[in-house]
Amino acid sequence: MSSPPRITPRTLKGFRDYLPEAMLARERLIDTARQVYRSYGYSPIDTPALEYYEILAGKGGEETTKQMFRFQQGKRDVAMRFDLTVPLARFVAQHIGKLGTPFKRYHIALVWRGEKPQEGRYREFMQCDFDTIGTTSIVADIETVAVIHDLMLALGIDDFVIRVNHRGVLGGLLDKLGLAAKSAEILRALDKLPKIGPDAVAGEMTSAVGIDQNNAEKILQLANIEGSNDEVLRQVQPLIAGSEMGEAGVESLTQLCRGAHEAGVSNERLVCDVSIARGLDYYTGVVFETFLTELPGIGSVCSGGRYDDLAGLYTKERLPGVGASLGLDRLLAALEKLGHLDAPSAPAPVLVTYFQQDARDAYLGLAAHLRAAGLGVELYPDPKKLGQQLKYADRRGFRVALIAGSRELEAGTCQVKDLSTGESQEISTDDNARQVAAAIFEILATDVPGD
Amino acid sequence: MSSPPRITPRTLKGFRDYLPEAMLARERLIDTARQVYRSYGYSPIDTPALEYYEILAGKGGEETTKQMFRFQQGKRDVAMRFDLTVPLARFVAQHIGKLGTPFKRYHIALVWRGEKPQEGRYREFMQCDFDTIGTTSIVADIETVAVIHDLMLALGIDDFVIRVNHRGVLGGLLDKLGLAAKSAEILRALDKLPKIGPDAVAGEMTSAVGIDQNNAEKILQLANIEGSNDEVLRQVQPLIAGSEMGEAGVESLTQLCRGAHEAGVSNERLVCDVSIARGLDYYTGVVFETFLTELPGIGSVCSGGRYDDLAGLYTKERLPGVGASLGLDRLLAALEKLGHLDAPSAPAPVLVTYFQQDARDAYLGLAAHLRAAGLGVELYPDPKKLGQQLKYADRRGFRVALIAGSRELEAGTCQVKDLSTGESQEISTDDNARQVAAAIFEILATDVPGD
Repeated sequence: MSSPPRITPRTLKGFRDYLPEAMLARERLIDTARQVYRSYGYSPIDTPALEYYEILAGKGGEETTKQMFRFQQGKRDVAMRFDLTVPLARFVAQHIGKLGTPFKRYHIALVWRGEKPQEGRYREFMQCDFDTIGTTSIVADIETVAVIHDLMLALGIDDFVIRVNHRGVLGGLLDKLGLAAKSAEILRALDKLPKIGPDAVAGEMTSAVGIDQNNAEKILQLANIEGSNDEVLRQVQPLIAGSEMGEAGVESLTQLCRGAHEAGVSNERLVCDVSIARGLDYYTGVVFETFLTELPGIGSVCSGGRYDDLAGLYTKERLPGVGASLGLDRLLAALEKLGHLDAPSAPAPVLVTYFQQDARDAYLGLAAHLRAAGLGVELYPDPKKLGQQLKYADRRGFRVALIAGSRELEAGTCQVKDLSTGESQEISTDDNARQVAAAIFEILATDVPGD
Repeated sequence: MSSPPRITPRTLKGFRDYLPEAMLARERLIDTARQVYRSYGYSPIDTPALEYYEILAGKGGEETTKQMFRFQQGKRDVAMRFDLTVPLARFVAQHIGKLGTPFKRYHIALVWRGEKPQEGRYREFMQCDFDTIGTTSIVADIETVAVIHDLMLALGIDDFVIRVNHRGVLGGLLDKLGLAAKSAEILRALDKLPKIGPDAVAGEMTSAVGIDQNNAEKILQLANIEGSNDEVLRQVQPLIAGSEMGEAGVESLTQLCRGAHEAGVSNERLVCDVSIARGLDYYTGVVFETFLTELPGIGSVCSGGRYDDLAGLYTKERLPGVGASLGLDRLLAALEKLGHLDAPSAPAPVLVTYFQQDARDAYLGLAAHLRAAGLGVELYPDPKKLGQQLKYADRRGFRVALIAGSRELEAGTCQVKDLSTGESQEISTDDNARQVAAAIFEILATDVPGD
């Protein structure tokens, strides 16, 4: 039989495989996020990867919409989802009667965008969103901040700042300046402040947006306010005084800071920053971004905000909400840079070596007893040279190797080898390997030297 | 501003949303599978949802290949993956140098097939595969059986049977009958035995496959052998004697049964069944199917087998392996029918009601203290009527509600209400709510009456 011509194994441009080490890190991060989300009462949901194009495109025109993977499926015009917000809007419009409000959900799933691949940007990536739908209560805003806070701590990150603003603050100023109609364009210009600096933002406001120099300066003056949260709010006050929207915004920020403090978020970790704009124009209340103090360059690792009307395109019911999205890829890169990812480690910490050719059943039994005691155990499948098996153990990151040759098997014992120190102990296996399990637990409880 | 025309919220035919209750069950099942896979040293991997069509189509011709969602992406001919086996083959061909062998991986991910939607069949579903690549050792076959066994027990399923056969057994008989060249067609006919019965299978063998009646009867005689594993293997012996392939198959089954027994699998749960054929022709050694004793009608919930050459289309390296695939949707349906799915339950068991309009910060603090004690706590976001909040608690499946009105807040206490019995206790919150947490843990530790 002649074999068919071989096909070169490769992934599409902008797509990637996850090998075990990267995947174990991703699973750990997702598990932590899920635990924190659940501890606040958020429930998981899932939606299809494919939807009607019409539904995903919505109003159309957004950059992301143009990047959709879109195709004909039979007579249907379909596309792969490009975010989890549009599917959430469709989902709640469709099911809200059954779900009831308040509805708190998290959604951890892949999205696809046909954008130009760049360093660290992929056409397939995972999003990790949580939202509270159907309430305008500031409790939901405060909890969103508290979730971000608890999640960072659960990941081992102590040095971070959640920067918070309220759309009403800038909106109030624009109201007073008679520029409310241009607020979306002004917000988008202001969002570039950290990247292009105040002069370029002022330039964009006067030339592209078409407001006068004097007003551009007033907007930048507001965005420049710094200090403690109390000081910031005090300085903002006169600039927005008399605007109902502006005063409500300041009041929201005041309550948010106080409530978050009661919920355990320290003042150093929640900072009022009136320059935070966030480009997306559906935000209508508080907006957040989260920065890691040691890695300011990677940008926000968790961002979000409050919106008035999530699903207006799909239902006449007005559904306000608040939520945020965790930047999984950024956060994984950050954890790696900060040394918070564990060293490469095998999913099961114990390797039973296959030493004595005809002792397979004895090894299978030993491994089963240790698993019953709660240990993760891999049995090397072939009776290869011990050196080769120990090399495998080292490469895969096992912590303990068990070795039993003919002498040990006759004596009813095995060697328990701590792979980080190289030390071995000979321990009886007679009691369903209970003593062996105890010795292994002791080794696993000690830190790996040098880590 | 006039709003754009509304779009009807709906999913594509054959696709579905997961609401929280279904999603919580799916997450629990996947968590259990991951734990068991890891306890044997299997590591997670992931591959892209989209691949080059050429890679996914491979040799082409299979039913599944025709059902692919395929489209042009720029100049590229791409498709969504229809299983996790073809991507695994491409993955190991591409990365085996880095991964090394033996390589044990699990992969839990969505796949898409444009087949005709039917009751319980969807165009998007999750697969949950585990495989050991790069070894021909029977240890890997035995561990595959042991994983299925441990997984069923971990899911609370006691009554199940893993049926096992070896391709060499039937192959040996066909060898002796001079029918080796037609073995793929004969296997496919035999695979229909439980569905269409022996007469129809014999009919298909004589008419469609074109073998004579006498040989068809001999094949069915082999497939009909029943009894204890020892008895089955003894009866098979004379039918395959003299065929090297057949004798090797019987020897493999003998070793598999003995090894699985040592690994903790009881004889009642591992049954040699020489009628198990499995339609897929890439299997070359042992093949498995898993049936639930109480629900025989749902078919196999976990199936797999050994193959000689996983990735021959993509690499000249010969990569043998063994693995199985868990039928998540079937298993979820089975768990529901068997009453092994928990009652609908909130992701966090405790609801702090929002009773006293101006006590928001006190409630936020109480919830934070309880979370710090390890409890999942949701704070109702709005000061609605207590009855409405308790109704919400009931509908969502909370176990405990905390209620603090002005009297309790002044006294530094709260009411801890067990929602399954309706009983309340008033407990001090003075000690960072430690006593409240203790009372809640006590309630959670008792079974829900009537469950």
